[in-house]
Amino acid sequence: MKKLIFLAALLIVVSCNTQQSSSNDYKDGSLSIDERVEALLSKLSIEEKVAQMRIFHANIGTKPDENGNLKLSKKVIEKLKLGIAGIKNPGEHIDPVAAAKLNNELQKYIIENNRWGIPALFVTESYNGVDAEGCTKFGRPMTSAASFNPELVQRQWDVVGREARLRGMHMCHSPEADIVRDPRFGRMSEAFGEDTYLTTQMVVSAIKGVQGDYEGLGKGTHIGAVAKHFAGYGQVLGGSNFAAIEISERTLIDEIYPPFEAAVKEANTLGIMASHGDLNGVASHGNPELLTGVLRDQWGFEGYVVSDSNDIARLFYFMKVAESPEAAAQMGLEAGIDIDLYAEDSYSYLPEMVKNNPDLEELIDRSVRRVLRTKFILGLFDNPYIDIEETKKGVRSAASLELAKESDLESIILLKNENKTLPLSKEKSTKVALLGPLLKENTKEMFESVSGPNIKFVAEKGFQLTNEKGGAPELLERDPKAIAKLVNTAKSADVIVLFLGGDKFTAKEAYFSNSTLGDRATIDPVGPQNELVEKIKTLGKPVIVVLKHRRTLSINTIASEADAILDTWDLSEFGDESTAKIIFGDVSPSGKSPVTIPRSIGQLPYHYSMKEINYKKEYLFLGKGPLYPFGHGLSYGDFEYSNISISSGEITRETELTVSVKVTNNGNIKAKEVVQMYIKDEIGSVTRPDKELKGFEKIELDAGESKTVTFTITPKMLEFTGISMKKVLEAGDYTVKLGTSSQDYLETTFKLKK
Amino acid sequence: MKKLIFLAALLIVVSCNTQQSSSNDYKDGSLSIDERVEALLSKLSIEEKVAQMRIFHANIGTKPDENGNLKLSKKVIEKLKLGIAGIKNPGEHIDPVAAAKLNNELQKYIIENNRWGIPALFVTESYNGVDAEGCTKFGRPMTSAASFNPELVQRQWDVVGREARLRGMHMCHSPEADIVRDPRFGRMSEAFGEDTYLTTQMVVSAIKGVQGDYEGLGKGTHIGAVAKHFAGYGQVLGGSNFAAIEISERTLIDEIYPPFEAAVKEANTLGIMASHGDLNGVASHGNPELLTGVLRDQWGFEGYVVSDSNDIARLFYFMKVAESPEAAAQMGLEAGIDIDLYAEDSYSYLPEMVKNNPDLEELIDRSVRRVLRTKFILGLFDNPYIDIEETKKGVRSAASLELAKESDLESIILLKNENKTLPLSKEKSTKVALLGPLLKENTKEMFESVSGPNIKFVAEKGFQLTNEKGGAPELLERDPKAIAKLVNTAKSADVIVLFLGGDKFTAKEAYFSNSTLGDRATIDPVGPQNELVEKIKTLGKPVIVVLKHRRTLSINTIASEADAILDTWDLSEFGDESTAKIIFGDVSPSGKSPVTIPRSIGQLPYHYSMKEINYKKEYLFLGKGPLYPFGHGLSYGDFEYSNISISSGEITRETELTVSVKVTNNGNIKAKEVVQMYIKDEIGSVTRPDKELKGFEKIELDAGESKTVTFTITPKMLEFTGISMKKVLEAGDYTVKLGTSSQDYLETTFKLKK
Repeated sequence: MKKLIFLAALLIVVSCNTQQSSSNDYKDGSLSIDERVEALLSKLSIEEKVAQMRIFHANIGTKPDENGNLKLSKKVIEKLKLGIAGIKNPGEHIDPVAAAKLNNELQKYIIENNRWGIPALFVTESYNGVDAEGCTKFGRPMTSAASFNPELVQRQWDVVGREARLRGMHMCHSPEADIVRDPRFGRMSEAFGEDTYLTTQMVVSAIKGVQGDYEGLGKGTHIGAVAKHFAGYGQVLGGSNFAAIEISERTLIDEIYPPFEAAVKEANTLGIMASHGDLNGVASHGNPELLTGVLRDQWGFEGYVVSDSNDIARLFYFMKVAESPEAAAQMGLEAGIDIDLYAEDSYSYLPEMVKNNPDLEELIDRSVRRVLRTKFILGLFDNPYIDIEETKKGVRSAASLELAKESDLESIILLKNENKTLPLSKEKSTKVALLGPLLKENTKEMFESVSGPNIKFVAEKGFQLTNEKGGAPELLERDPKAIAKLVNTAKSADVIVLFLGGDKFTAKEAYFSNSTLGDRATIDPVGPQNELVEKIKTLGKPVIVVLKHRRTLSINTIASEADAILDTWDLSEFGDESTAKIIFGDVSPSGKSPVTIPRSIGQLPYHYSMKEINYKKEYLFLGKGPLYPFGHGLSYGDFEYSNISISSGEITRETELTVSVKVTNNGNIKAKEVVQMYIKDEIGSVTRPDKELKGFEKIELDAGESKTVTFTITPKMLEFTGISMKKVLEAGDYTVKLGTSSQDYLETTFKLKK
Repeated sequence: MKKLIFLAALLIVVSCNTQQSSSNDYKDGSLSIDERVEALLSKLSIEEKVAQMRIFHANIGTKPDENGNLKLSKKVIEKLKLGIAGIKNPGEHIDPVAAAKLNNELQKYIIENNRWGIPALFVTESYNGVDAEGCTKFGRPMTSAASFNPELVQRQWDVVGREARLRGMHMCHSPEADIVRDPRFGRMSEAFGEDTYLTTQMVVSAIKGVQGDYEGLGKGTHIGAVAKHFAGYGQVLGGSNFAAIEISERTLIDEIYPPFEAAVKEANTLGIMASHGDLNGVASHGNPELLTGVLRDQWGFEGYVVSDSNDIARLFYFMKVAESPEAAAQMGLEAGIDIDLYAEDSYSYLPEMVKNNPDLEELIDRSVRRVLRTKFILGLFDNPYIDIEETKKGVRSAASLELAKESDLESIILLKNENKTLPLSKEKSTKVALLGPLLKENTKEMFESVSGPNIKFVAEKGFQLTNEKGGAPELLERDPKAIAKLVNTAKSADVIVLFLGGDKFTAKEAYFSNSTLGDRATIDPVGPQNELVEKIKTLGKPVIVVLKHRRTLSINTIASEADAILDTWDLSEFGDESTAKIIFGDVSPSGKSPVTIPRSIGQLPYHYSMKEINYKKEYLFLGKGPLYPFGHGLSYGDFEYSNISISSGEITRETELTVSVKVTNNGNIKAKEVVQMYIKDEIGSVTRPDKELKGFEKIELDAGESKTVTFTITPKMLEFTGISMKKVLEAGDYTVKLGTSSQDYLETTFKLKK
């Protein structure tokens, strides 16, 4: 019933649009984009329309030949005859200039080989830089989140957008706007952490960056973003990819939707990708309330929605919510999926289906309009090609590489620093042992480049964590003497730096194929890493642990044994150099943990913003609270918070407040600090979070310097989905907390007037 | 807005009722219960009405004096002047006859000391027998669930109802109708396991038993049930008591509500208790849609709803969804909580509140009607006292004690039995070592009583798991030689029986007080139990493990080392005797696991009926599937399933099917088997469970005997909450599986016609 009403409403809208279509030529640049779209759409056959709703992967046959010239497989030639919405990753394995050349040829072929000369979208991914040969590699999103510096993240993604466009790309299936709270999930580090507000800031910055604040799209300098995975993908049960998602409507609205809503409304994302999963039983790829109701009717999204790989077909063969591949195609179409990613057996059926069900063409037109509109926005009809001279100059510029280093330096989190173990002095003659399974071949070299002549290094990896067999990694048989050898090496050193965590196989996407695993049922460090720390500790020398990882780990042993811990997640290609700079005090660390670090996997779900009532009971035989809280991160500076003050004890529905705090660096080194603002609603019509991050500012203070940091509190910040399921602003008491982490702050109170 | 409309609707209903009230005398037994209720209600002052909405705990002053005569504290005398809804646990610490005498005196005092002579409800709990001195102690509900024998459970609770009434009780705050799927939750064993269907059968049986199939209420032979905790209490996040509950509406309706719905509609429960928790943000104690909309409007519940301890007041001081204690009282009243359990500072405010808000009196009347009605149903106005001669004869009768033993024998689960280690022969001269921390003082004696003269025993506990300090237990310092001593003792034996699991402190209710802990963040066995198994195993002798526990444990080590495992959960007071009978082959085990036993806590949530899509991906470095599946349990018989057949390949919305399977006992011992029927909906409008238990039958087969077991499949069994949030019956393919566990079955298919 609901569906019918919805469809009827849609048909009205669609037929209005149809009336606007004109016979004007779509190549006429003086017309508006909408006019050009309608002009072109009116010319397309049903088969040509559906071709604008499909993306295929370049690996089915668009490689360069031995001379670097475009060579198309028969399969690709066949596919391109009707035009195509887009191609994923063309030229991904060749350098940017070669890719630009190849992609120019490919685009030219496409334009010249479909009736109307419609260009294709070339699509990449870019969570840590363009996912292609020869581009600048930044840290992963979780690493960026730790910087608590959205401006920096925007600059980073600006480089990503430019480098992608310069190799001929137009869209990226990034960033992830998912809230990730389950470290069992192999893709955890692809998103920006556990917090809704922090993730929202980062997603908006990423999209603005990669799209050149929207203006870069038409100028041809940037690419379109596709925020994903809408919605709830981070909430897969058990952290298990493809599992069901179970979440209340209220949590969905208040905690999961906001990064997507901001992607649409603030950052003007060109695209949205639907989630693999179901959402409380309803497959996201077949969910019109989500993809049309929320996304378009509520938020006004005008871009296109793309499926995740094969997910429309999967409504039939995996989710089992459609009775046939055709029914799956219809379900995806009706829900609002505009582009079918990869599937050979889904939207391909639409032309045949329209014969029996002519109403479908209105829905097809709806989607094709969105795709064509995107191509016009990106200027592809007018300027489809790349200027390769620009590519030569623009990719991996010195400034880009410097930015990767700058980002690293702001993202490294100092979790622990007992007795000021860090920074190490460059002046004092010291022998440093660099040890452990996460050591890279050039780690020692990078450390030497930073530390200067007084520091001598010895480096030894000792053992590997895993190797890969088929799709699934397996634990490596370890030389039983490996630990003893490392301890022996450590004996000769004055200071030991252990490189611990997880390798690329211990946390990754668990693809659909059964043999490809990436989720874990434990978060303990793999292999004998805890044993290594314990044995090294017995030497009585300073032990510094550098953590590299792609999921939150249970680091109780490391936390108790190490003198200092640098949590680096997954930094840029210059990561070890940046780590060395922090270790030797070139820069004070200023990263803050974008996730709660639990004592035990058994504490999950565990994030700082859970309901206050979740914190009532402790567990038996376990310490209280998390091992390290969200927002935690130490500094070489020594920050004192004082003089919290608020502009008024009352706020109304129409006014704002300001709250400020004085921060003083009592240390003797210039350092950055992330001042965090949390708000707690003391009483609500529904149970309320213990606290919620509502603002943060990263400041830099010289030794001895003070600064007063001021935040504005707006009524909007106090909104939530009340007992009636409407957004409400409830009168009563609020507490605002300003501090250095989610557990270390000063506080004051105010009232919202009735 | 919603709330106002609801209130208006209510006032109409209430005022209709008011018009029915008459001046007839409520003592006139010839009138209907409703007439008597209205007659009495019309006489009560507002203070007297509110007194009928409060229960206090007997421990504030209703103890016997040194001569066994009733002695009331000043506080209690004060409370009883206006009458009272009820008293919790009067006489709980004295024997049944003394309790009956005391409770007669107490009831007499109450009746004679309030204006209208209104009797009180005396309330107990009874999850494993009446929770009071001198009554028969059965196994816990999880143990009963393992019997897969509802008829047996009904007989068990029939005894509970009789023993309770004989000591002067009228209601019990039992059974738990919660679905428990998180073994971190300390109260896990108080409910009937992970499955909705099994729990529903057991809850209905328990209520029918305890209420004497309703007829025992008025006859004065049984007591009223209070099914709890409505709703979702088993789903507290992280298994942490008092934590928030996050669950989709669809799951709530299809998986959590059914045991409660059946408690109301099939078993006619007199009472329902609300859940401590919130439910997707809405506190259950302040949730009119739940307590009135679902419970009364949808299901037609006519009994009373009681709060959990102090939970109305807690809407203010803990849940923080009410601005004051008075607001909390109003919220509870409006939601539909009829009785306030314990709180001194909640419904006590109602008389004063009515002065300013006279509309509240209609709501108060609504609740008082329900309480008075219950008292009339129980015959308390006409026959308020117990015949103590009956008490002398009726409690702990030989038949009751036999029933406890019978229940045990049907509930013990044989998880593993390598090389037919069990049963042990009574004929062969054997020395058996009974070892481990879960050994009781009389275990050896009980084993001797069963095994006969050829078996010699040595018994040694070795170490304790915990002791209690304040409210929280702590791990015990263990004699470092304890394991070595046990191994030494084992050396002299031919067979070793290890008693492992958890003690009463390692899984219990985590009460509100901070120091009382009962939930755990791991499910590993506490202390060096795995080490004990490994060391004992090196002796090369048969190792039998008897598991006693109150939460699911991670038993990978035990499962790999032990030759046989008996999972006994928490049996009756005769548990070790029953275990010995199974070990020595007096009876074949026939229990089936009412929960999935995972390999790791990291697999949670993990129950057999999860969505099919949840089973797509395995975890890295972990085996596939659960350690033991739901419904698993071996036998000394040897059951072969064959000849599955179905009456038709099609079912319609109006017809039924039968499906049958032949089960043959190829073994040489008479044995019981639980034949289980699971149904899978192959395609649905929403993602569907991998399979769902829809029927089971416990049969007994002699050696060599065959029986054909037939199940009826009704359209009702195929219903679920479809994409429109309505209950639907969807045409298409279904698979039915008949077998010995949720992973070992034969299958056939049928179609539901359009």
